[in-house]
Amino acid sequence: MLCTLLTDFGLSDSYVAQMKGVLYSSCPACTVVDVTHLIGPGDIQEGAHVLWQAVSAFPPGTVHIAVVDPTVGSSRHPLVVVFGDQLLVGPDNGLFTHFLTAGGQAHILRDLSPRTPWATFHGRDLFAPAAARLLTGTPLEELTAGPVPDPVLLRFSEVLITTAAITGCIRSIDRFGNGISDIPVELVQNMVVASTQIGDTVVEEIGPGPPMATFASVLPGRAALWLGSGGTVEIGVNAGNGSKVLGFSRGTRLILHRGART
Amino acid sequence: MLCTLLTDFGLSDSYVAQMKGVLYSSCPACTVVDVTHLIGPGDIQEGAHVLWQAVSAFPPGTVHIAVVDPTVGSSRHPLVVVFGDQLLVGPDNGLFTHFLTAGGQAHILRDLSPRTPWATFHGRDLFAPAAARLLTGTPLEELTAGPVPDPVLLRFSEVLITTAAITGCIRSIDRFGNGISDIPVELVQNMVVASTQIGDTVVEEIGPGPPMATFASVLPGRAALWLGSGGTVEIGVNAGNGSKVLGFSRGTRLILHRGART
Amino acid sequence: MLCTLLTDFGLSDSYVAQMKGVLYSSCPACTVVDVTHLIGPGDIQEGAHVLWQAVSAFPPGTVHIAVVDPTVGSSRHPLVVVFGDQLLVGPDNGLFTHFLTAGGQAHILRDLSPRTPWATFHGRDLFAPAAARLLTGTPLEELTAGPVPDPVLLRFSEVLITTAAITGCIRSIDRFGNGISDIPVELVQNMVVASTQIGDTVVEEIGPGPPMATFASVLPGRAALWLGSGGTVEIGVNAGNGSKVLGFSRGTRLILHRGART
Repeated sequence: MLCTLLTDFGLSDSYVAQMKGVLYSSCPACTVVDVTHLIGPGDIQEGAHVLWQAVSAFPPGTVHIAVVDPTVGSSRHPLVVVFGDQLLVGPDNGLFTHFLTAGGQAHILRDLSPRTPWATFHGRDLFAPAAARLLTGTPLEELTAGPVPDPVLLRFSEVLITTAAITGCIRSIDRFGNGISDIPVELVQNMVVASTQIGDTVVEEIGPGPPMATFASVLPGRAALWLGSGGTVEIGVNAGNGSKVLGFSRGTRLILHRGART
Repeated sequence: MLCTLLTDFGLSDSYVAQMKGVLYSSCPACTVVDVTHLIGPGDIQEGAHVLWQAVSAFPPGTVHIAVVDPTVGSSRHPLVVVFGDQLLVGPDNGLFTHFLTAGGQAHILRDLSPRTPWATFHGRDLFAPAAARLLTGTPLEELTAGPVPDPVLLRFSEVLITTAAITGCIRSIDRFGNGISDIPVELVQNMVVASTQIGDTVVEEIGPGPPMATFASVLPGRAALWLGSGGTVEIGVNAGNGSKVLGFSRGTRLILHRGART
Repeated sequence: MLCTLLTDFGLSDSYVAQMKGVLYSSCPACTVVDVTHLIGPGDIQEGAHVLWQAVSAFPPGTVHIAVVDPTVGSSRHPLVVVFGDQLLVGPDNGLFTHFLTAGGQAHILRDLSPRTPWATFHGRDLFAPAAARLLTGTPLEELTAGPVPDPVLLRFSEVLITTAAITGCIRSIDRFGNGISDIPVELVQNMVVASTQIGDTVVEEIGPGPPMATFASVLPGRAALWLGSGGTVEIGVNAGNGSKVLGFSRGTRLILHRGART
């Protein structure tokens, strides 16, 4: 009985512990795993990305609670999303976009708590109790009030594929300063990248060729393009902070030019 | 067998892991939950507040270790505090003030460790072993040497209630910049707040009326007063950092004026 | 079945959660404990130190995964290190220096994963699966391909002992700003330190005498030398940040002069 938590609650306050207290109270045999609590306050897009990266590593039946919920207590729906053999619980605000566009199904979570939940802490009063019930075997039907016809979806730019180039963007930047793009590795595994452009700048250091297997294939301090462990192309600097050195941030375009370098 | 940890040890050093190693060595079946390790170094008041907020969410029999202990190794007593069905273990320096003033009872922890504990790490050498014994069923009487007649209590300002206003203060500020006050929600649930004053400033944006159910009841960027999930009134800015925008910090007075607005 | 994790992955990304997902998938009964994930990016020396401090607190049979791995995907070996009744898993880059110089034995980890691991995430694709197999009882011989004759060792300066002084250095600085040296407490427990020198400066505040039992033996704001809980001499300022006040950093020399002060 495995339950993960992803929030923007930070690590200094008692909020995360309160959620865990509720989970262990209702489901003493569960194991609770933190994904992260350092999502930027209210940054649904970042939360959606990290959640998507994390979930696939977990065993079937894991329940994932995600709370980046700037409109808590308003009319936004609480959800249970069924994605393959994983269950996700949280607000209907776009946090589950990647799962929903990949076939996940959203159900409206009913409020079964004995008392009215505090309007500002659904993580503790609504989502954690619901997750505990899912963990202890309550059928989805009992907890939910039918499918959500039109769940909130974040809009992401699409990867553009032409005969001249593949154009994506940086989805997130990790602790090392590496840029994780939205370009699937399948698109580039057999591709000879003639030149690599980040924003308006061609990165001269990254010569023509296929993306590397790892940043460690280039000398320390040198920029590289490689096949990221999350299944998309990544760009960065070996033993350096690519985001700072190359000057990219979330949303910066990444263009992989094919053929003769211009 | 649930054990929580709250310390000011931070998340970079090995101290927290050493405590967990001791707990799992003596009590392999226990589950250890972090409350936080980011209490400001030596900030007993902050530790007392976060601990108080966290404990009530946990199931009966949970043992809570709290170590914010700037005088470790001095003559201050080590304690076990019994608070309802919860047990707390840590130094006698005010960290347990909220529990003791709410009926908790403090007992002097005896040092039963086979070797003399290091004077600087009672968390590992005294409190964790004691917690493990409590978790594995050692009776309190065996671990303690009688009640502490006069445990250390922090002094907090009291909430002042008059026919004109309720005057409290900001007890803590959370990651979102929301101010958690010491004014119980019961005092204001049916109250029409004529005007809200933080420090010397009346917050004009917060119009007359009862406190909101949630910050999300006002437009993003606007200040609000609401019923906090910890049971006290909170003040902040929806989708903004109230502490920065409104200029309050820990200890700032919060005054809720009754009747006609001046 | 206890498994610890030490990485430089930080706490914001999904990397740590992905490793835990793999561990719980292969070994549902295991308990995973974080040592820290805030090792400086690629800082093998810091990782080696914190790992060494943490491991001894854990019960026999604990498996420790350590991933500070700036050359991941290159030809560096993956290792299993046997150290007494503890097992360590990670890259052959010096991270296990303290264990290897204290009698630990390094074995080359074979890659038994069904698919080729991503070259940039051996933590998830190589080390976590190996740790899960160790936890579930796979014999070491099955997982490894023989001893590593010449594992990578970091070079640390040695403590110099003369009739005039003991010269060591600051190995690490903890959250409180205390300097943890490499001078074993056994060397100084019965020693009268005539004067204490940090870098080029004699700390006048620390008078002649044996090291204290705890920093709390001096007044707040005063410097002290004490017997650290990790088994080495520590220097700092009671209720202050010794690193900032006294101006030391990692590598700064610490000299304990014997006899008459010069």
